[in-house]
Amino acid sequence: MSDSTNQRKPVVNWVIFSVTVIVVFLAGIFTASIMERRAETAAKFQITKPIADWEPRNEVWGENFPKEYETYLKTLDTNFASAHGGSIKHDYLENYPELVVLWAGYAFSKDYNQGRGHAYAVKDVRSTLRTQGVQSTMPATCWTCKSPDVPRLMQKMGVEQYYSGKLIDLGSEVVNPIGCQDCHDPKTMNLSISRPALVEAYARLGRKVESFTHNEMRSLVCAQCHVEYHFKKEPKNYLNFPWDKGFSADSMEAYFDEIEFSDWTHKISRAPMLKAQHPDYELFMTGIHAKRGVSCADCHMPYKVEGGVKFTDHHIQSPLNNIAIACQVCHKESEKTLVQDVLDRQERVLEIRRIAEKALAAAHIEAKAAWDAGATEEEMKPILKLIRHAQWRWDWVAAANGVGFHAPVEALRVLGTSVQKAEQARGLINIVLVKHGKSIPTPLPDISTKAKAQEYIGLDMPKLVAEKVELLNTLVKQWDEKAKQRQGSLNTYQQK
Amino acid sequence: MSDSTNQRKPVVNWVIFSVTVIVVFLAGIFTASIMERRAETAAKFQITKPIADWEPRNEVWGENFPKEYETYLKTLDTNFASAHGGSIKHDYLENYPELVVLWAGYAFSKDYNQGRGHAYAVKDVRSTLRTQGVQSTMPATCWTCKSPDVPRLMQKMGVEQYYSGKLIDLGSEVVNPIGCQDCHDPKTMNLSISRPALVEAYARLGRKVESFTHNEMRSLVCAQCHVEYHFKKEPKNYLNFPWDKGFSADSMEAYFDEIEFSDWTHKISRAPMLKAQHPDYELFMTGIHAKRGVSCADCHMPYKVEGGVKFTDHHIQSPLNNIAIACQVCHKESEKTLVQDVLDRQERVLEIRRIAEKALAAAHIEAKAAWDAGATEEEMKPILKLIRHAQWRWDWVAAANGVGFHAPVEALRVLGTSVQKAEQARGLINIVLVKHGKSIPTPLPDISTKAKAQEYIGLDMPKLVAEKVELLNTLVKQWDEKAKQRQGSLNTYQQK
Repeated sequence: MSDSTNQRKPVVNWVIFSVTVIVVFLAGIFTASIMERRAETAAKFQITKPIADWEPRNEVWGENFPKEYETYLKTLDTNFASAHGGSIKHDYLENYPELVVLWAGYAFSKDYNQGRGHAYAVKDVRSTLRTQGVQSTMPATCWTCKSPDVPRLMQKMGVEQYYSGKLIDLGSEVVNPIGCQDCHDPKTMNLSISRPALVEAYARLGRKVESFTHNEMRSLVCAQCHVEYHFKKEPKNYLNFPWDKGFSADSMEAYFDEIEFSDWTHKISRAPMLKAQHPDYELFMTGIHAKRGVSCADCHMPYKVEGGVKFTDHHIQSPLNNIAIACQVCHKESEKTLVQDVLDRQERVLEIRRIAEKALAAAHIEAKAAWDAGATEEEMKPILKLIRHAQWRWDWVAAANGVGFHAPVEALRVLGTSVQKAEQARGLINIVLVKHGKSIPTPLPDISTKAKAQEYIGLDMPKLVAEKVELLNTLVKQWDEKAKQRQGSLNTYQQK
Repeated sequence: MSDSTNQRKPVVNWVIFSVTVIVVFLAGIFTASIMERRAETAAKFQITKPIADWEPRNEVWGENFPKEYETYLKTLDTNFASAHGGSIKHDYLENYPELVVLWAGYAFSKDYNQGRGHAYAVKDVRSTLRTQGVQSTMPATCWTCKSPDVPRLMQKMGVEQYYSGKLIDLGSEVVNPIGCQDCHDPKTMNLSISRPALVEAYARLGRKVESFTHNEMRSLVCAQCHVEYHFKKEPKNYLNFPWDKGFSADSMEAYFDEIEFSDWTHKISRAPMLKAQHPDYELFMTGIHAKRGVSCADCHMPYKVEGGVKFTDHHIQSPLNNIAIACQVCHKESEKTLVQDVLDRQERVLEIRRIAEKALAAAHIEAKAAWDAGATEEEMKPILKLIRHAQWRWDWVAAANGVGFHAPVEALRVLGTSVQKAEQARGLINIVLVKHGKSIPTPLPDISTKAKAQEYIGLDMPKLVAEKVELLNTLVKQWDEKAKQRQGSLNTYQQK
């Protein structure tokens, strides 16, 4: 007996051991899956405010904050300081026609003006040719940065559901331009993040937005929008900041390459392109102002005194229009000197920016010649990658506001690599062209004006304008009517 | 009578009138010639000090100015702060072997180290392979910035005569390294310009050196040497600053192009090259420190206190070794922060500088391939001009001390144009190669080390070294002996 018992014991032990291992293994998998789900939940931004608490109408806030509101309304002023931005229309495509070629196949080739004051945000989204006509296919995500109506919609619809819709389907819901509630909590008036993407991006980097100081918040409320972003494929058109590998042009490029993301395929060169938005915050962070603890608001919304009352100037604008309270608080130099210091840097950045964009336009056109000559996918792959990277780096600087002033040294470094990559691409294209029996250099078309460049890339501008006029005369009028009924009043300043 | 008298009078008047016109005309020519000669004289620097008043021996000055002399001697220290310059040897050709190719056919391809402290000036000129052996053909002009013996020689020999001689013929006359008398008047101790080129260059721009303030003089004494210069063909090897069109890389390039000046013809590409010296002053002037009235000495020779005595630190060095008295006087940040701020800028400048020098090395090698393929002078002309300009602009930044920190934005602008031009040259070369039936790209040789690169450009290094050793063992010993007899004593610190 004792023998047989002794013989069975090891078998039992093995069974117990094996079951334990399996159970522990399964428990591990289960725990990991829960933790992953928790991490996913933690990374998602929760909008918990009751819908009734949202007040998107800036004029209603203005009743209690007249000075802030009055200065905010100055962002509508079309007459001020045309030299340094302001709300006068600057047509970038007219000024730099190469841009039309750089964005061939993408909406920016149709229409791209200098951004105007915040109070024009809704009007300008409705008007730009980029958002198309009554048949617009543009995603609702495009509204995200344009209006304090958005948090309410996100809460009502759910964030993913909101992003996945169409821009024109929310036309009557998004009518109040960028304003009070985008940055302030309606109860406490504290600075407050109202959009998910910033919170989610910092969460992935292990940082909670609550951990930032008040002065950091004076930049972070701006960084909800003044950043590089892209629309994810899954969840559909989900707004995402590509910061996972870092904030530099190089890091974001590596991120996009890793996930094989492209905003569009270039119509001329067939390169898988990236469109930089305005990485103002990211570029600014590499500059000396950020390093010295200066916030966006310190320069763009400096403290102002009127009749003994101190308040933050909500006329958000170029500090060049406001040297006395924006710059001279720290810099004890004359206005003239300080303005010149900025212009000196911007002129240098612009010089190299122009070199990059001319090289890029040529690269796209020459790449087309290579395709036409019978180049293979294999041959074109390294070329298209160089074009993608060169244009990304150019755009990372060009799309940011301030002509590189936020960090001129970093801007020029990034532009220098753009020039290098664009010219390298052109060199490789010539090699391919020769291999396929073509003569080099490729003759370049006349793209010396916006109209000529748009004709070259095959845009039917009269058709696009007609579609836009139709939208403005039909849907947009209905949207305003509906919005007025919904929210009880509609300030028409955005229609000015 | 009255009639005849009346008839003669107009004739007399005409004679008087004609003579007057001629006399006035000749007087005008004479005056203009005198004025021109005066302007010429004004533009030439006059050395009027009696020869006996010159005291080139720093140790003699040191008897009355011990603190200045003691700190000056620290420029000999080989152990300090290797991270930020100092007198440890940094072999640039070893670190960046492409430079060997960039300077093929020019002495810098043999030997190029980071400049050491001022007290090594004579020793390092004697030792560098650039100044050759006992058969050296280098001009005496090379001594101009190396020693306070130079003003005495200029006075004794005449400035033009001094410049027109050979370096080795003045070996026993130039033995005291850069020191007191280069910047100070021996009678008054005031800051004083001791060399002609700076005075002459500013005179051509309509400015007398006497019109500069004391703090400007604290930069100008440095700008006697820390500038871009070239040796004119006529008068022979006359030292000249190419500032007539302005101080920027672009302006100097235009000046050199207009007078069709080149320092040498490139051995590989046959391009007519320009060698930038160290345009520290010119680059610095475009930066924020100069704009805020900071002088070279403010950072490189800051005021120091020892035992209650305030004096100027004559240990001229990188301010990074001296943050407390060099930077923190104005910048209220930690040493760590300030050093990092400098390194951040330098790293970015270095990144684009490296891109430029790699592109340039390839351009020279590919240009050779084009010549070898039978390219014509006509075909190569625009290419060689691009290479000339690209390398000039690269060198204008690379040769300046401080890795661009004196004005990082301007440094990066200039480097950006260098990258552009170098890559454009490469594109054009490929077109020429194809036209002549060659395949592209041109295979590049292995130039990954200094030795490999020097072998590629055909330098016989053992021969050059042997010639140098011979010079040091023969002539140099005689020079020191003669000098000792001539001036009564010879400090041997420069032999360390």
